Amino acid sequence: MSEHTKVLVGIIMGSKSDWEVMKHAHDLLNQFGVANECSVSSAHRTPKQTLEYVSQAETRGLEVIIAAAGAAAHLAGVTAAHTLLPVLGVPMESAALKGLDSLLSTVQMPGGIPVGTLAIGKPGAVNAALLAIAILANQRPELREKLRAYRDEQTRKILQEKLT
Amino acid sequence: MSEHTKVLVGIIMGSKSDWEVMKHAHDLLNQFGVANECSVSSAHRTPKQTLEYVSQAETRGLEVIIAAAGAAAHLAGVTAAHTLLPVLGVPMESAALKGLDSLLSTVQMPGGIPVGTLAIGKPGAVNAALLAIAILANQRPELREKLRAYRDEQTRKILQEKLT
Amino acid sequence: MSEHTKVLVGIIMGSKSDWEVMKHAHDLLNQFGVANECSVSSAHRTPKQTLEYVSQAETRGLEVIIAAAGAAAHLAGVTAAHTLLPVLGVPMESAALKGLDSLLSTVQMPGGIPVGTLAIGKPGAVNAALLAIAILANQRPELREKLRAYRDEQTRKILQEKLT
Amino acid sequence: MSEHTKVLVGIIMGSKSDWEVMKHAHDLLNQFGVANECSVSSAHRTPKQTLEYVSQAETRGLEVIIAAAGAAAHLAGVTAAHTLLPVLGVPMESAALKGLDSLLSTVQMPGGIPVGTLAIGKPGAVNAALLAIAILANQRPELREKLRAYRDEQTRKILQEKLT
Amino acid sequence: MSEHTKVLVGIIMGSKSDWEVMKHAHDLLNQFGVANECSVSSAHRTPKQTLEYVSQAETRGLEVIIAAAGAAAHLAGVTAAHTLLPVLGVPMESAALKGLDSLLSTVQMPGGIPVGTLAIGKPGAVNAALLAIAILANQRPELREKLRAYRDEQTRKILQEKLT
Amino acid sequence: MSEHTKVLVGIIMGSKSDWEVMKHAHDLLNQFGVANECSVSSAHRTPKQTLEYVSQAETRGLEVIIAAAGAAAHLAGVTAAHTLLPVLGVPMESAALKGLDSLLSTVQMPGGIPVGTLAIGKPGAVNAALLAIAILANQRPELREKLRAYRDEQTRKILQEKLT
Amino acid sequence: MSEHTKVLVGIIMGSKSDWEVMKHAHDLLNQFGVANECSVSSAHRTPKQTLEYVSQAETRGLEVIIAAAGAAAHLAGVTAAHTLLPVLGVPMESAALKGLDSLLSTVQMPGGIPVGTLAIGKPGAVNAALLAIAILANQRPELREKLRAYRDEQTRKILQEKLT
Amino acid sequence: MSEHTKVLVGIIMGSKSDWEVMKHAHDLLNQFGVANECSVSSAHRTPKQTLEYVSQAETRGLEVIIAAAGAAAHLAGVTAAHTLLPVLGVPMESAALKGLDSLLSTVQMPGGIPVGTLAIGKPGAVNAALLAIAILANQRPELREKLRAYRDEQTRKILQEKLT
Repeated sequence: MSEHTKVLVGIIMGSKSDWEVMKHAHDLLNQFGVANECSVSSAHRTPKQTLEYVSQAETRGLEVIIAAAGAAAHLAGVTAAHTLLPVLGVPMESAALKGLDSLLSTVQMPGGIPVGTLAIGKPGAVNAALLAIAILANQRPELREKLRAYRDEQTRKILQEKLT
Repeated sequence: MSEHTKVLVGIIMGSKSDWEVMKHAHDLLNQFGVANECSVSSAHRTPKQTLEYVSQAETRGLEVIIAAAGAAAHLAGVTAAHTLLPVLGVPMESAALKGLDSLLSTVQMPGGIPVGTLAIGKPGAVNAALLAIAILANQRPELREKLRAYRDEQTRKILQEKLT
Repeated sequence: MSEHTKVLVGIIMGSKSDWEVMKHAHDLLNQFGVANECSVSSAHRTPKQTLEYVSQAETRGLEVIIAAAGAAAHLAGVTAAHTLLPVLGVPMESAALKGLDSLLSTVQMPGGIPVGTLAIGKPGAVNAALLAIAILANQRPELREKLRAYRDEQTRKILQEKLT
Repeated sequence: MSEHTKVLVGIIMGSKSDWEVMKHAHDLLNQFGVANECSVSSAHRTPKQTLEYVSQAETRGLEVIIAAAGAAAHLAGVTAAHTLLPVLGVPMESAALKGLDSLLSTVQMPGGIPVGTLAIGKPGAVNAALLAIAILANQRPELREKLRAYRDEQTRKILQEKLT
Repeated sequence: MSEHTKVLVGIIMGSKSDWEVMKHAHDLLNQFGVANECSVSSAHRTPKQTLEYVSQAETRGLEVIIAAAGAAAHLAGVTAAHTLLPVLGVPMESAALKGLDSLLSTVQMPGGIPVGTLAIGKPGAVNAALLAIAILANQRPELREKLRAYRDEQTRKILQEKLT
Repeated sequence: MSEHTKVLVGIIMGSKSDWEVMKHAHDLLNQFGVANECSVSSAHRTPKQTLEYVSQAETRGLEVIIAAAGAAAHLAGVTAAHTLLPVLGVPMESAALKGLDSLLSTVQMPGGIPVGTLAIGKPGAVNAALLAIAILANQRPELREKLRAYRDEQTRKILQEKLT
Repeated sequence: MSEHTKVLVGIIMGSKSDWEVMKHAHDLLNQFGVANECSVSSAHRTPKQTLEYVSQAETRGLEVIIAAAGAAAHLAGVTAAHTLLPVLGVPMESAALKGLDSLLSTVQMPGGIPVGTLAIGKPGAVNAALLAIAILANQRPELREKLRAYRDEQTRKILQEKLT
Repeated sequence: MSEHTKVLVGIIMGSKSDWEVMKHAHDLLNQFGVANECSVSSAHRTPKQTLEYVSQAETRGLEVIIAAAGAAAHLAGVTAAHTLLPVLGVPMESAALKGLDSLLSTVQMPGGIPVGTLAIGKPGAVNAALLAIAILANQRPELREKLRAYRDEQTRKILQEKLT
């Protein structure tokens, strides 16, 4: 985990195989010093444990939940149905349909239960962490400054890139 | 409802607006004399009641659950996660993507938790009822004979059709 | 095959190349002790033999047919047209369109002839077996208990998984 | 029907509702003096009658079969599996997916059983008739001349069109 | 606008025609007493004004920006590139492709610049407001309680619905 | 080429890279003893030579043209616009979109100019040859018998296949 | 037509029914004082006249050709194959697939023969005219100033819009 | 760069990883002796530098800008919003959706701000260069002759290709 004691972000994923991608979210949160916890939690195969985890997240002090799943990706939607916290969804690239199914299953939520959805796969994992940080940063000026520095560094790196 | 006392099929749908389509499943089950119960039950907006209903279905003696939902259609998958009964999913035609999202969200379930998915919209509603009847008919010869008669009548009607 | 004498589930597939995927359905049925038979049977290339097989399935005592095919996947629909038994369809991942063609060809059946469709590829093969078992389990309490144990074990395994 | 005695083209369609579209094929064949016969014949709802019709087509002297169906459109493929005659498929525009399902179900046939597929809906109906005529015209010079005249007239009409 | 003095949420949209849909976000924020401001601001047709607005949002005290656009929907991404605030994107239903283009243009952001994307059209507008409220509620207990009440009321309404 | 002197089928393809796939059509026609000629002929990069070839095909005695192309696959349509012969189109699997672009570009012809379209890639190449043979066989009984034998052998092979 | 004598832009379209959309390109060119000519010219139904027109465009002094077509939209590609002038393609919204077929048929050109493709339907027609003007403006300062004024006016109008 | 002093074409791309593809545009422009400059310039990660570059392009004497990006590919649209020069867009093949997202994000621009879009990936890069050359060639007869020679050579090469 990271250096701070209070966990602010929970990352859950539908399968252990999602970890290779979601690790990027975890690493980025750690880099920003945002305590976070990661676990496999399937809407379909461990439904009770998932609901238990999600239902307690608010009282445990979490401020954002990131949920990643593939194919008929119900995890983010089911999570959002059981908490008032902001829920961010990351569609995993799936075997046959390359994540189009995961994307539509995650983003096309009915009015009433929102999931803020990021891109399919690794860019989505990275951006879920960054959006979580942006959300937390509204009330944490030091986090916003870290975000500003991260953006500046990102820009600087691209400007340095040479073609050839 | 129908003439028999023991409810064998539960039909749940994510929104009252699905009823216009799902009524075809209800009517067909009634026509076959299969007792069934219908209710609005949203995976997202009434999640606790949905789980409660689904979790009790087996002990209440239901033998099939039909779940219909649109867009990020999680209802059938969530239902299947909480019961051992056969679950049939009917993807509703959605506003923007015409049910492609509903279909993929319903059918692309991960290995371990099956949803037998029917076609988008009304044909799917009709066929969910017919598949439920075929499942029940394995142990109910009189139901299989009714199904045979239904098929024969269906064939007869088409053969009578005149193009002009 | 498996230890029981009476075959309850027939698995047919459009091409021998589907066997690598459909073997998962066969193995799972065997694991549950459900006698099943598997054969290549193409709606297009062995149409007469397919119809013969399907037409006799009911009187031979089968209770579920699982049909797997790819691309213009007509096998499940053609099967359903010639039997009153519940038919489950598994869309194979196809070369160019990755199973989107197989999925739509299998699931979008017209009202009157149902095919309960599972996910594209291996998850669909696994789930076809599990759905067949759920159907059979309605009248076979010992099968339902095996299913319950399977689900519990599945949940237990995921909960044990460690990230990193 | 048309003025000639020997029927050369059989047009079958999966549902009476396809007639509004397929009538354009019928009318065009009539306009060319090609005797043809039209009937509703469903791969799913009248499977035996469909096979009977298709199996006898060759010996009855037909030279082309046009098969039109929508959604999980199996009619053309099933027809092709039971005859050596050239089979032309017309995907009907379907309710939810607008004919994408019909198209993929018709055109993505496995190697061994060909279906020459035309466009979705009315342009496909018109072109199925024209392709049938082109096929017949290989051995019927007068039909080829009629086709040439038809094309010339078609060109002439477009060239006369005024934009205003 | 609403009763509170400090504007917390900015809603921008690419075209005046999006207002009919985005008004639902505005109304919902008002209903929760969250001061918000709405304007037409096109990434393509008023690019300078858009950048000016977005660049000043943080110092003006906004905490969330909701950006809605259709077709090649660049507004949310361009917004996210010029602010550190959390940006939520709402893909508008487009004329030809029904919002599939809007969705992919909004959600498939590269790693580094996140947009939390909601569903196409009205459900997305409603949910963008609710997600903004959930974000704000992390530090405003009274807003979380209003959200809880909103959810409870939503559930209650559905449970009261009668099918007939 | 093949043993007969009069070329009956012309196979053209948009790029030399299509030959690996289209060779299957060539080989199959040879196997049936149908004289055929194959060439690269691009609607875009050798337009004049393509039109010259196509325009002379009828008077040179060809009876079917098979045209294969990928991506914005215009070859079959352009061919059909310049000949009265039956034209069969084979969509090649394309780099990015896997042949969906090739398929739609080939099959969605406007009313008036038909292209009988086969499946994407190798199955389409095989089936284009078989459909050409079926067309030729209408007036060549020995070809129809060869086709019957081919089908029988195809069926026999599948029936012999053993799973394990 | 417009006030200038030398025609610089040719607009061709595959069907008279495209005129309602393409008129927007014509009107916009007129508004900028760019002489242009419009005609129906089908790649499929008037292929010779199309080639004749396109082949002469360069020597007649045209500088841009705009080609609009729907479904298997070959017109822009065929045009580009027969001229060295810059060719802009406008995919028309098609009946069944809503222009996805038109778009892919127009834009996915093989390396060697470019078509600069605009959006499906009316926005594409407007933008084809604007891009043609931008191309012409490289050597016509007064046209660039008109374009600048057009953009400024466009921005001004949007900024004036009031939401209410 | 190339032998001429005045840069006429600017090539920008959203990521260094696009260079492998876009190098084909650069090489082709060089081959034609058209001075061009290439740089990484992200609409999202270096937005200010991108706007600065694009805004100065006209006064610096550029005549065409080629913009390449993948996924939510906003670069071409953002470029077009900030310049009156003709902008050509090249959608990069993206990881999950294979460039369908890039294509729609680039081509579906709203009326008012045109992007002339080429094919996904390498064919698009090649064609962007060729279209830029065609645009420049309107006022540079020697460039048009080079283009004519290039086309002739391209045709000659294909005609020389031997199958087998």
